Amino acid sequence: MLALRLHGARDARLEELPEPELRPGTVKLAIAWGGICGSDLKYYANGPVDGDDFVHPLIGEPAPHVLGHEFSGTVTGLGDGVTGIAIGDLVAVRPNVWDGTCEFCLKGLPNLCVNKGNIGIQGGGGGFSETIVVPESHVHVLPEGMSAEAGALIESLTVGWRPVKRSGAKPGDSALVIGGGPIGLAVLLALKAHGVDRVFLSEPGERRAALAAELGATVLDPRSVDIVAEVRRATDGGVNVAFDAAGFDPTTLPIAFDALRDGGTAVVVARFHDPVPIDPKGFLFGEKTITGSISYDDEEFGEVIAAVHDGRISPEVLITSTIPLAEIVERGFEHLLGDGRSTEVKILVSPSLTS
Amino acid sequence: MLALRLHGARDARLEELPEPELRPGTVKLAIAWGGICGSDLKYYANGPVDGDDFVHPLIGEPAPHVLGHEFSGTVTGLGDGVTGIAIGDLVAVRPNVWDGTCEFCLKGLPNLCVNKGNIGIQGGGGGFSETIVVPESHVHVLPEGMSAEAGALIESLTVGWRPVKRSGAKPGDSALVIGGGPIGLAVLLALKAHGVDRVFLSEPGERRAALAAELGATVLDPRSVDIVAEVRRATDGGVNVAFDAAGFDPTTLPIAFDALRDGGTAVVVARFHDPVPIDPKGFLFGEKTITGSISYDDEEFGEVIAAVHDGRISPEVLITSTIPLAEIVERGFEHLLGDGRSTEVKILVSPSLTS
Repeated sequence: MLALRLHGARDARLEELPEPELRPGTVKLAIAWGGICGSDLKYYANGPVDGDDFVHPLIGEPAPHVLGHEFSGTVTGLGDGVTGIAIGDLVAVRPNVWDGTCEFCLKGLPNLCVNKGNIGIQGGGGGFSETIVVPESHVHVLPEGMSAEAGALIESLTVGWRPVKRSGAKPGDSALVIGGGPIGLAVLLALKAHGVDRVFLSEPGERRAALAAELGATVLDPRSVDIVAEVRRATDGGVNVAFDAAGFDPTTLPIAFDALRDGGTAVVVARFHDPVPIDPKGFLFGEKTITGSISYDDEEFGEVIAAVHDGRISPEVLITSTIPLAEIVERGFEHLLGDGRSTEVKILVSPSLTS
Repeated sequence: MLALRLHGARDARLEELPEPELRPGTVKLAIAWGGICGSDLKYYANGPVDGDDFVHPLIGEPAPHVLGHEFSGTVTGLGDGVTGIAIGDLVAVRPNVWDGTCEFCLKGLPNLCVNKGNIGIQGGGGGFSETIVVPESHVHVLPEGMSAEAGALIESLTVGWRPVKRSGAKPGDSALVIGGGPIGLAVLLALKAHGVDRVFLSEPGERRAALAAELGATVLDPRSVDIVAEVRRATDGGVNVAFDAAGFDPTTLPIAFDALRDGGTAVVVARFHDPVPIDPKGFLFGEKTITGSISYDDEEFGEVIAAVHDGRISPEVLITSTIPLAEIVERGFEHLLGDGRSTEVKILVSPSLTS
């Protein structure tokens, strides 16, 4: 089968690999669509996340690894003992793994598992291939009528779903989202699905700004607007919840925090290199909160499938390109490292697409 | 009656004032004890909190104001319509006021009321006097057997009680408290009352450190110990909850945050002048939280009275001096601005004490 393996920085190779074999309790899929994530791009640009020699304790496969952790597919084989899944089912795969035994797993926080990892990042095959075998516990059968494209978006949508839950946002609340990339837009969609209709979104890129506006956000351009002043003015004191989905820029988290009204919560869903200056007066005098959200649990993955199925989330608008697996390096990664950075949101990749 | 009014920076005067009059729904008290709070000291050193001309919308009395918002007393008079309180009752007074109608009051957060204030800071009389008249809704009758001294400590204990509730601390959790002043020690007592037995407390002052140790904390001297490294080592990865009760020092909040284990919560209960550098990686990858706690509500004030009554909190050890009202300026404020800073925790003041 054809699969993309990451050998090093800017060295991802399409290779013919033997098909993975079914084991008891596993499910074999023909991949339908795989989405390119910002983290895939980071690994492509910089090389494997954990270095060449790392073997994940749960996934346990030596490098080079197949990439792709956002994917959907059709069931083509069932290992011994698998129940509730049938040949021909269209499914989405929850890629994150946990050990189920550490203090965080036992507290209901498997996303913080001391042995956490991801299929499609640290081993176990990946979505940028023709075929994969995954444990049945990772397989979510999609409801009747849901598209395979939507199925490939569930993972990144869930990354935006959990922070909205963690913010405590309620219907009628107001929100600020900083950054209109795939995660910022997923947060926007999750906010709308939670009844938060009044969402400000800060984004300088034209394509992303237009998409955010189409999804119902009041879009502000941080190059020309004082985000804190404008949001506080428009909401008479600040938003209830805010989300930093931009990252790396040390000015964005203070903006999210200062744009909160008293009692509000800001959630970090972006990566940072360096410490960021926060004014603690907002913690003390306003009982404001900053927290974060990383990954998700199995229940949340299912909640997003349900939200897409019943129409609370219509995510297909996030798909800006569909490309063949055979062209993923040039039309996917290299494109996103160049011009595509400002024009693309989500690129879906298919092994069965020819052009 | 004798009362202490603040006229300006370092200008607090003991004056003979007319006794306040009972009105319907109010209660008249003979003050037993009033505690000196860090904020009293700040106002004494710098002058009235809101400036000379400010008249609080709810308390509504022009300056100069009587100081003292931590106090107990004996009921000597009842206004028309007051029920459930009897002449001779020993009571503690909840000093904070709120309007009950703003968005925060309606959300159950009266401590964030847009018209919040305090009896004994912005008007309405104060605890550093012989007599006061307060609305009955502020009066908590102390249970049989509780001392008037303990009654005067309820206010500052409640300032340390709410942050422990906001931290989500559970029995069996571990905690770090930075600062062993009255609020830090109140947090320590509240943690113990919540079943958090393993508490580290960072404090350089000898008297305060000894008191914290007596109250069951593992005391660390931040001048000689790397607090983050030691706490993470001793707890195998960090504490569940942390409290910054030091303030002004920009290094303490990062210590509280970095000493948390994943999923943990740090609560700010101290004042700061300037922004503090926080590493956002702890928010994202560890889903750690920073929040704050200011003041308290009526229910929490009652919870602390109950905890003192049933022995979960034994606060009398916090009282390091008792002085007469007539000597409050020299033996209270001026002492605390000098040598007393490092040797005192809580000074109680009484109008009936003669030396």
